[in-house]
Amino acid sequence: MRSSQYLLSTVKETPADAEIISHQLMLRAGMIRRVASGMYTYLPTGVRVLRKVEQIVREEMTKAGAIEVLMPMVQPAELWQESGRWDKMDAELLRFKDRHNRDFALGPTHEEVITDLVRREVTSYKQLPLNLFQIQTKFRDERRPRFGVMRAREFLMKDAYSFHLSQECLQKTYDAMYQAYCNIFNRLGLNFRPVLADTGAIGGSMSHEFHVLAASGEDAIAFSDGSDYAANIEMAEAIAPTGERPAPSQQMAEVATPNVGTVADVAQLLNVDNSQIAKTLFVHAATADDAKNTSKTVQLIALVLRGDHELNEIKAEKLAQVKSPLEFASEQELRDLLNAGAGSVGPVNIQVPVIVDHSAAHLADFVVGANKDGYHLTGVNWDRDITKYQVADIRNIVAGDASPCGKGKLEIKRGIEVGHIFQLGETYSQALKAGVLNEAGKHQIMTMGCYGVGVSRIIAAAIEQNHDDYGIIWPDAIAPFQIALIPMNMHKSVRIEEATTALYNQLTAAGFEVFFDDRKERPGVMFADIELIGIPHSIVIGERNLDNQEVEYKNRRSGEKELLNIADIVSILQQRMQQK
Amino acid sequence: MRSSQYLLSTVKETPADAEIISHQLMLRAGMIRRVASGMYTYLPTGVRVLRKVEQIVREEMTKAGAIEVLMPMVQPAELWQESGRWDKMDAELLRFKDRHNRDFALGPTHEEVITDLVRREVTSYKQLPLNLFQIQTKFRDERRPRFGVMRAREFLMKDAYSFHLSQECLQKTYDAMYQAYCNIFNRLGLNFRPVLADTGAIGGSMSHEFHVLAASGEDAIAFSDGSDYAANIEMAEAIAPTGERPAPSQQMAEVATPNVGTVADVAQLLNVDNSQIAKTLFVHAATADDAKNTSKTVQLIALVLRGDHELNEIKAEKLAQVKSPLEFASEQELRDLLNAGAGSVGPVNIQVPVIVDHSAAHLADFVVGANKDGYHLTGVNWDRDITKYQVADIRNIVAGDASPCGKGKLEIKRGIEVGHIFQLGETYSQALKAGVLNEAGKHQIMTMGCYGVGVSRIIAAAIEQNHDDYGIIWPDAIAPFQIALIPMNMHKSVRIEEATTALYNQLTAAGFEVFFDDRKERPGVMFADIELIGIPHSIVIGERNLDNQEVEYKNRRSGEKELLNIADIVSILQQRMQQK
Repeated sequence: MRSSQYLLSTVKETPADAEIISHQLMLRAGMIRRVASGMYTYLPTGVRVLRKVEQIVREEMTKAGAIEVLMPMVQPAELWQESGRWDKMDAELLRFKDRHNRDFALGPTHEEVITDLVRREVTSYKQLPLNLFQIQTKFRDERRPRFGVMRAREFLMKDAYSFHLSQECLQKTYDAMYQAYCNIFNRLGLNFRPVLADTGAIGGSMSHEFHVLAASGEDAIAFSDGSDYAANIEMAEAIAPTGERPAPSQQMAEVATPNVGTVADVAQLLNVDNSQIAKTLFVHAATADDAKNTSKTVQLIALVLRGDHELNEIKAEKLAQVKSPLEFASEQELRDLLNAGAGSVGPVNIQVPVIVDHSAAHLADFVVGANKDGYHLTGVNWDRDITKYQVADIRNIVAGDASPCGKGKLEIKRGIEVGHIFQLGETYSQALKAGVLNEAGKHQIMTMGCYGVGVSRIIAAAIEQNHDDYGIIWPDAIAPFQIALIPMNMHKSVRIEEATTALYNQLTAAGFEVFFDDRKERPGVMFADIELIGIPHSIVIGERNLDNQEVEYKNRRSGEKELLNIADIVSILQQRMQQK
Repeated sequence: MRSSQYLLSTVKETPADAEIISHQLMLRAGMIRRVASGMYTYLPTGVRVLRKVEQIVREEMTKAGAIEVLMPMVQPAELWQESGRWDKMDAELLRFKDRHNRDFALGPTHEEVITDLVRREVTSYKQLPLNLFQIQTKFRDERRPRFGVMRAREFLMKDAYSFHLSQECLQKTYDAMYQAYCNIFNRLGLNFRPVLADTGAIGGSMSHEFHVLAASGEDAIAFSDGSDYAANIEMAEAIAPTGERPAPSQQMAEVATPNVGTVADVAQLLNVDNSQIAKTLFVHAATADDAKNTSKTVQLIALVLRGDHELNEIKAEKLAQVKSPLEFASEQELRDLLNAGAGSVGPVNIQVPVIVDHSAAHLADFVVGANKDGYHLTGVNWDRDITKYQVADIRNIVAGDASPCGKGKLEIKRGIEVGHIFQLGETYSQALKAGVLNEAGKHQIMTMGCYGVGVSRIIAAAIEQNHDDYGIIWPDAIAPFQIALIPMNMHKSVRIEEATTALYNQLTAAGFEVFFDDRKERPGVMFADIELIGIPHSIVIGERNLDNQEVEYKNRRSGEKELLNIADIVSILQQRMQQK
């Protein structure tokens, strides 16, 4: 591609409204332009990267036995009503009416459509397992779209759905998808980790997220330094402390703690470590049947954590006694129950269930709120001062915690979620009565898996992980062009033009995607653009080097420069790209 | 691909709700399934064909210098308001509000979005010409979607938009697109014709449609049998008869024609040919300014055609005197003006403008309505009996008319429109003020072209053109699989299984897409499915032929069968597919 026949659209200034580096660089490198909030046009450089990511995903899915289909973006309400999600989903599901006043939605995902398809097309166990995927445009009407294509409203996704008659069969496809995802992210040239994940609102039992590691990632991931264990911090188990709990050595005593509310304040006032304080959070209890609960009294539950630990809301929500999604008690509810404010509440002598985190349950002689404004209790001990309580894992892990796998300690890194695999189970197949005749001739509901890759999101994640002060540093596999040719003052030198054109033809014929910068621009402008758009290999063609039949090669990632003989260029570059 | 690992989904019965053969066959061959009116899921066989068509279109567009972009499907109202189409377009433009109550539409086309992009990104004549294309999902809320993907609401389209500073430059890109479209349809293996077309509501000056020829096509196309001339029948010029008009030989006389209304009835009663009758149609006249026209009297215009000719409404609409879109006079309006019904009106002694088709203007001693119910006039002659009239081309051509190119006579064939190229001019660039600095440093509005290919529609058109009683007959280039392997009783014969597997591996390694029918089905079922889905080349592996190291080859299109030596298969098939 010659730049004179291309739409480069690079921008020097950092756009004011782009908060993260990938968004800034995608705008500056001429990859995307905003059409409306969360909606983008991909410019030529953006499309080139997008199509490469798409093709790698398609090839690896196909290799893993998945079959490509294509479902519509616009979906009829009936299917969403059948699954129950028409009413359950919030405004993220963009609903509208067609000209005949029928209800439709823009598809944010396709569980309903695929389950409907499969229940019609698949009638016998002989047709199973089946794993269908598509690469298709989705729409989620995010309340606050931002970060460019990282959280867009309209985006390109690969979604796959598998159908089975047994958990073993589902597990086999799940494992194959796990491996396919590893292959995809390896081929993309990204540093990634699969991590155990929460199955969340979509339901199901087993789930892994695939994260591209980047300091700017919005998710925290816990890694063992002694094994392959990795889990989303929401999921990572904080294991119970080992050894005996110390015996009580103090008497419980009430101390005045006027005007202090936070753990840190109390710790400072009483001259103890944060970890010696037990903080108590009150949340709403689950009710047997919310609809029938006509009493206006809200039942509360006390959650007790060490002062230096944070509540893990996902773990708390999973407790049977706790209302899900989590609701914290209001100041008024606390006052009605305990006659004290949030800064002075504690688990001693209260009439509601108490759930204690493993670490907090290991404390002796600790400090809690006295349920009396401006007072705390010191020297508190479990079993002696609080006799009725339950112990559970309800905190976020912290760096240095023992790994739940039993090997090593946990580290925390940041990641960007680019893939997610789920064992869905029968959530959708039950709702849509999707079953087949099994080997015994009986009708049996299928069990399902689903597997997503954020195709457009991968681009942003790749940039978050691969950039420097000058711009993007593409892995070879998804670079918009692999090689840039930068001729020096070509418009004044026939010799330079001829040498560059010859090299262009040679490299193109060898199958490389070459960007020939034939603009009448100063060398500095050309260098800056090539670095900004992140072409991995560039070749500068100048008069002096041509005298020796040489050109200057520069590697975008290492920054290394070297002189190469023109005759060797093709074979050297072929070698370097194969080594990746 | 082994059929046991595929979703074949063929259907024996012809679906009741599918009216045309391509829709029936796409359903029966397991290519598509209906999700809602005009919305389809592409099953694996459908996706394979769709992706091939898409890739051929992409490659030829790229070769022709167009650059790929990708615009969003959801478009903000503001751009459509700026072009004026937000209010102008009917319900085909599906409008809706997002969660923040902002107006959006599903994109049926992208003139607004691309023009907005280019006015921001392109500032100098140096960046022109520019031709940007995308292959993207469109939505048109058709009032009556039908014929499967032939007229769907959601469909895949390639649309391209070019930008220029001069008509010469536009013409050059237009010509390149014309050639690219010829290349596309040739590579697809389709019998097609580019035809001159009306520019219609989208505006602009020059336009060609690309039609796949098929007896079932909904458009009529006029071809010269003596040249390359082809035009949509809406556009084909009916040239004026040559030679002198015969001199009058009869006196004008009133004859009673009771209870006859149609041309054929009158001709029979008076014992003359249909072509000797001049029929008169009355339409509304264009008014200088409709908004200011407060008079309730509608002005009429008389259009006179030979009795054996049909009015071409598009030609009539283009006349300055005629209201566009065309409105025919009501029975009451005729009676108010002429005191006669539609079956008895004529151009003699009337007070409204008369526009006569060239052929009708060449008549002498002809018959017209007498403007008196139940009476006609015979022996009517131009200039003598009707003195004030204008001559124009306002009829549809008929087979046998002289070609307007001057060579040969016209034939009429049916076609399916699959591509359309337009010289848009400044319609959108003016509305959106899309200009650049020209060579003189002055701001100049760009001129535009636009170029569409109905990617998913091509599939239906290809089937309309290529099928027989047994199913689809794919051209090699877009067949879902190129070769089918049909083993006889494989599940009872290890030898057959081994031979078929070896052949499968060999053909796959040679780069062919092979469908290995490894189902436990009767041969008849397998043959029927392979013919239905239209795989061009099939190979039957049977015990007896294996004794001679042979297999049976069958060509889907010709139906010819022959025995081939297994050792030669790869080279023979390579040769046959290259010859295409």
